[in-house]
Amino acid sequence: MIQSSLVPAISQNRQWRLVARPIGLFKESDFEWREEALPVPRAGQLVVRNVYLSLDPASRGWAARDSYLPAVPLGEVMRGVTLGIVQKSLDPGFAEGDWVQGLLGWQLYALADGAGLTKLPRALPIPMLAYFGALGHIGLTAYFGLLDIGQPKSGETLVVTAAAGAVGSLAGQIGKLRGCRVVGIAGADEKCRWIREELGFDAAINYKTENLRESLAQHCPQGIDVDFENVGGSILDAILERINLGARLVICGLISQYNATEPAPGPYNFANILIRRARVQGFIVTDYAPRFAEATVEMAGWIAAGKLKYRVEVVEGLEQAPRAVQKLFDGSNQGKLIVKVSEP
Amino acid sequence: MIQSSLVPAISQNRQWRLVARPIGLFKESDFEWREEALPVPRAGQLVVRNVYLSLDPASRGWAARDSYLPAVPLGEVMRGVTLGIVQKSLDPGFAEGDWVQGLLGWQLYALADGAGLTKLPRALPIPMLAYFGALGHIGLTAYFGLLDIGQPKSGETLVVTAAAGAVGSLAGQIGKLRGCRVVGIAGADEKCRWIREELGFDAAINYKTENLRESLAQHCPQGIDVDFENVGGSILDAILERINLGARLVICGLISQYNATEPAPGPYNFANILIRRARVQGFIVTDYAPRFAEATVEMAGWIAAGKLKYRVEVVEGLEQAPRAVQKLFDGSNQGKLIVKVSEP
Repeated sequence: MIQSSLVPAISQNRQWRLVARPIGLFKESDFEWREEALPVPRAGQLVVRNVYLSLDPASRGWAARDSYLPAVPLGEVMRGVTLGIVQKSLDPGFAEGDWVQGLLGWQLYALADGAGLTKLPRALPIPMLAYFGALGHIGLTAYFGLLDIGQPKSGETLVVTAAAGAVGSLAGQIGKLRGCRVVGIAGADEKCRWIREELGFDAAINYKTENLRESLAQHCPQGIDVDFENVGGSILDAILERINLGARLVICGLISQYNATEPAPGPYNFANILIRRARVQGFIVTDYAPRFAEATVEMAGWIAAGKLKYRVEVVEGLEQAPRAVQKLFDGSNQGKLIVKVSEP
Repeated sequence: MIQSSLVPAISQNRQWRLVARPIGLFKESDFEWREEALPVPRAGQLVVRNVYLSLDPASRGWAARDSYLPAVPLGEVMRGVTLGIVQKSLDPGFAEGDWVQGLLGWQLYALADGAGLTKLPRALPIPMLAYFGALGHIGLTAYFGLLDIGQPKSGETLVVTAAAGAVGSLAGQIGKLRGCRVVGIAGADEKCRWIREELGFDAAINYKTENLRESLAQHCPQGIDVDFENVGGSILDAILERINLGARLVICGLISQYNATEPAPGPYNFANILIRRARVQGFIVTDYAPRFAEATVEMAGWIAAGKLKYRVEVVEGLEQAPRAVQKLFDGSNQGKLIVKVSEP
């Protein structure tokens, strides 16, 4: 039996291990709960107590197959980005009490060797939850994807899909800060209201209740210059229909395909990439690691000044993770989905 | 009745006009032969006698629908790139006898106003047919597409589709000049032999008789860094399967779709653009007009030195154009397809 506990002083490690490759949506039975002895660090290693675990659409791919990272081996701890506190360090680069972010998995305690860990600046002007929910890998993905790949110019039209999602909501706001007309696409009226009224998007389209092609024509009268794409499929097709010459399509995610059990066709309007001389480009935020520090400073400033708004949905307790992750794919989460693993 | 004549001194203009939007492949009945009075230039205009008419896959799109250029209006002269001689000029920028290239259409004489015409350098070290067949819009497309969009580096693997085609055969050779491993895909053994044995490609794949995925795996053991794409469809899908991180896909053409009568799905491996952080980019050569002069000099030097080989298939007589254009789509042409409209 699984008991919830956020108390940090615990004698055993707690983990979710991946035991089955998901078919279609994640099922709780794809994971197995494990309690085992605390890890003991050797020279050069450290032990991190995870405080927050990020649940991201990418996890579906990590569980299913090799891609930009190898698939999580069956029987191993499920992969996930966490924010935690160094509990014990035999690595001179880290001190006990340091906050670190890394791919430390769905577990309470993680053994790490410093490589791939990001140490948080101590003077961050925002709370840790704000950092993890709106900056960290989420915010940096929005920042570099939009600015570096999308290269929006003032006065251009930016469309964001999954626009009420963790990354999309930030990408749209950064587009506003850059002077774009920003149109968001989401799957619920409340999400549309939020991005329009609270985040300042110029328009929002509920693709489930509106005719997407007509609404895009209405809200993008000058065509589409930049697409920040999180979804793919028929939504991307409608966007491709209205792209301008020289459009940039930032491929950040393709969540419409992640749970597909059959090969999904690419966009029917693929030829518009040629006809409109567009650039379609995938990226992963870790490619920008050398520039994380500069972006973190700029974004933390925006968040502290209230220029970037965000919302997090915090699920209490590691034991909830397999159920909570499903919310990413049924559209029921509101804002960045985070599991609170232990008390800060 | 249509009579063939290459004699330049002719009292009437001869034209092919587009009279029906093609459905599927071009039919001869999509065009109508017309003989009419010679055009008379006014101030600022000139009359060009077309010598060579280029037949290009793009013509299928021009005849069917608005895209990067508006569709050819029904009843108007069919659009086409020609190389001709200025016959009469009331434009101070052009003299009688100048060689010019432009979109002057499927006709013997064309009225032009100088805009959009390229005047050929008089000191070109190669014959006019070489210029038109391997340089001009063809060679410049290969040059800028490969070098500017594809950005191949020495030691990388370049795949070229429609590799025995006018543009593909040049793109592959330019890739060799840049130090790439070059693998061509074509649809006939003779074409494969030509690009491998005469053009120096490292490998050639006949996609009609070989298992494309297996052959790509065999000939691209280090994966694919650059794809010069002229075809699309299932061939592009097989390529996407093997692209490396950071691959560049130059979308020069998608001939597999041009004659489609139903919407064609995009590549099933579209998600690899995200997973492999690839860049997929369309382009059109005219975007590079300010740099045509530099590229023309460099390419003419390569052609004169025998470093860039090419072949042209010259069809004699404008009246053959509607039949000849079909060869582009049944794969029966060998090299750049050119109609000789009149004697140089």
